[in-house]
Amino acid sequence: MAGHEADVIIVGAGLSGLFAARTVLAAGLTPLILEADERVGGRILTEEVLPGLPVEIGAQWIGDTHHRMFALADELGVETFPQYDEGETTYELAGSPVLRGDEFHRRFGGELAELTTVLRLLDELAAEVPPEAPWRAPRAQEWDAITAGAWYDGQGLSPVARTLLEICTVGILAVPTVEVSFLHLLFTIQTCGVTAELFAESEGGAQTTRFVGGTAEIPNRLATLVESHLVLDAPALLIEHATDSVTVHCRGGRSARGRRVIVAISPMLAGRLMYDPPLSGYRDQLTQRMPNSAAMKAFFVYDEPFWRADGFNGQLISDVGPARMSNDTCIPGDDHGVILMFLEGEQARTHGHWSQEERQAALTAELVRHYGDKAAHPVAYVDGEWGSRQWTRGCYNANCGPLVWTTYGPALAEPIGVIHWASTDTATQWSAYMEGAVESGERAAREVIEALG
Amino acid sequence: MAGHEADVIIVGAGLSGLFAARTVLAAGLTPLILEADERVGGRILTEEVLPGLPVEIGAQWIGDTHHRMFALADELGVETFPQYDEGETTYELAGSPVLRGDEFHRRFGGELAELTTVLRLLDELAAEVPPEAPWRAPRAQEWDAITAGAWYDGQGLSPVARTLLEICTVGILAVPTVEVSFLHLLFTIQTCGVTAELFAESEGGAQTTRFVGGTAEIPNRLATLVESHLVLDAPALLIEHATDSVTVHCRGGRSARGRRVIVAISPMLAGRLMYDPPLSGYRDQLTQRMPNSAAMKAFFVYDEPFWRADGFNGQLISDVGPARMSNDTCIPGDDHGVILMFLEGEQARTHGHWSQEERQAALTAELVRHYGDKAAHPVAYVDGEWGSRQWTRGCYNANCGPLVWTTYGPALAEPIGVIHWASTDTATQWSAYMEGAVESGERAAREVIEALG
Repeated sequence: MAGHEADVIIVGAGLSGLFAARTVLAAGLTPLILEADERVGGRILTEEVLPGLPVEIGAQWIGDTHHRMFALADELGVETFPQYDEGETTYELAGSPVLRGDEFHRRFGGELAELTTVLRLLDELAAEVPPEAPWRAPRAQEWDAITAGAWYDGQGLSPVARTLLEICTVGILAVPTVEVSFLHLLFTIQTCGVTAELFAESEGGAQTTRFVGGTAEIPNRLATLVESHLVLDAPALLIEHATDSVTVHCRGGRSARGRRVIVAISPMLAGRLMYDPPLSGYRDQLTQRMPNSAAMKAFFVYDEPFWRADGFNGQLISDVGPARMSNDTCIPGDDHGVILMFLEGEQARTHGHWSQEERQAALTAELVRHYGDKAAHPVAYVDGEWGSRQWTRGCYNANCGPLVWTTYGPALAEPIGVIHWASTDTATQWSAYMEGAVESGERAAREVIEALG
Repeated sequence: MAGHEADVIIVGAGLSGLFAARTVLAAGLTPLILEADERVGGRILTEEVLPGLPVEIGAQWIGDTHHRMFALADELGVETFPQYDEGETTYELAGSPVLRGDEFHRRFGGELAELTTVLRLLDELAAEVPPEAPWRAPRAQEWDAITAGAWYDGQGLSPVARTLLEICTVGILAVPTVEVSFLHLLFTIQTCGVTAELFAESEGGAQTTRFVGGTAEIPNRLATLVESHLVLDAPALLIEHATDSVTVHCRGGRSARGRRVIVAISPMLAGRLMYDPPLSGYRDQLTQRMPNSAAMKAFFVYDEPFWRADGFNGQLISDVGPARMSNDTCIPGDDHGVILMFLEGEQARTHGHWSQEERQAALTAELVRHYGDKAAHPVAYVDGEWGSRQWTRGCYNANCGPLVWTTYGPALAEPIGVIHWASTDTATQWSAYMEGAVESGERAAREVIEALG
């Protein structure tokens, strides 16, 4: 690779980088992808927990409005299947014992109505936020000066409604709501549609559909299309850029030269590269202010999905934890029962430090509270944390604290000379999702194709 | 330098790195400092605006309780002189025209009393925050979940008092108060003593004393003590660390090997280095969450300090700006009048984008409002911004948003194997000041000396 030349150097073989490579290749340009890791996929990572039984340590679902992803899966020949969604959710909230859905709704009907009211208000406010330029929202200054948590606290909610709101929001942001600006929350809602799409797994939601064989089929098959243009194990360190050319230097003395570069990693990671000439303070300060969030997934495998027979959908909601939420993630055609426990935000931070044995024990106890003793003896367990993964450093995505969008927003995706930016964090539709990764890769590729055309 | 060996590699020749080098050398160990820039000093930068007339683009003052700095200056033979502090401050606030201090105090006596009450309360609360472990404050969780700005907004202050509180706080933090956690503000106060020391330039304050010849005399003279152990223009890229050794690789293929390393750069910059083996997610997430703030200084030079004759101390306070505050920064023995205009937080961000001509014109108009037409024609002007400086990327210091201290605080200064951390941002006394830089350099050096002793 020393002395390697291409039209377009792409830093990162996550979904956005792979899609960008595929797109510039289709336009007759030569890409070269430099991937730091030994694998492609970035925040998509499928692992076999048992032979033939894949689980998703990273991105898992697409939703009904993820048109780019459905088209891509179709093109790549990756089949999809629907998320299981029958039976009742169980609730463990506000000091009450575990309740089945119908009982919970009876007992906390008022609180659930409060929640609905707030979600509707969020949708109304989010509709005023242009996802391509959140800083242009009429009330952007006001919304960016407070945290989402402070706004939630100001809604006069009952403790149960406030807790439910926190749980469903942290399920998206993967950090406590007091860490992100209210404008960022509204941007997140607007980039995805409405709260009903974001927070729900039912029809129309963000998490309705999965991929046969595992999500990694998508990046893996994309990678085969650009296989001769892909270098693994090549961590970029330095980008030297001029008017019409760019050289990317990697660890180990290797380098690649091109006419344009697409940096297809999260903004924080992009900020860690060295640039020569150095980038503006404006861009640099942005990348100092978009930290990646904290999410962990833990999978319990049983001989069968016994909860289904008991009338449960495998979804729990709990303020006791360690997991605040869970999911039935069985595979069609496989008899095993698989439950996914989510550790997000504070829970990922706290329990990410525990030994795997301690974590598994605490999560097992939680499952037993919800589904009884049958949950006590899984046949397999696996979990995955992202902050410690050197080439990702946090999932699901990058979040903005107060005043970041209104101060630095325009620096997020705007090209700088021959440098273009991708990664789902730069998307304007379904930012933080696979759909956003594809959108951003497509947009960056289009910028490059137009510039070189 | 390729193949260079030393006992202690030090990354960064700012004040903390230089002081650490001096200290390990005095203990009989061999240091090697790798500095990315072409100069030493880091956030200390003295420039001559006219021949023989130095101004401080970076750190400028020390205060009466900065015992380490007084001792260091004494040892290095750098003389000090007191900050000029006679005459009245002028105020331009809340839509009223520029008022002299006595008039302002008469008209806004009630508002100033409100301010005093809040400052006293801040001192009381800050006294509960252990500066070596802010996360152990009894109310740490509560204080870390809200922003300083939200807490200020909740004090029922009049607009004038709220504005004054914002101006004096941004003068310390260099970011708007809604960007930092309230616990971080209390830590900042406690690390310095009380608000009276932090916010005042009068006796006992943080800004009472300056250095003859310029602040850069301190790092420059320190550098001569370790001259043969200093390599400039050597940007560190990668730290390979093992149980008893460490190799630091710099841009250009150079490297240096030692037994320990002290990383003496701000936490965010430390996070941008590559580590092999990679550091924990816990440490990494911290460095994603301590962005550097935004400060600019602009100096106007006149034939004489005409404002003194008019009874002014050269300090203005304004909510019109562009500068929110100013200072008389004349040099004893030089007849010129020098006014320093501070652009901090939002003002540095906004006006940092302007051309120097536009910035100077806007600041000149402000000076004319306060000091009359004599201010219209400076004989020299210079300003300096820090976000665009590649090896600093923001001043004065690193600030924490909500939940950073309570979640990641212990990772800030704790050594990781053979890696030790310095920089004023890691100090427990006068963090963000030169005094803190010396404290942190001393502490890191002591850790290394003990480990190798």
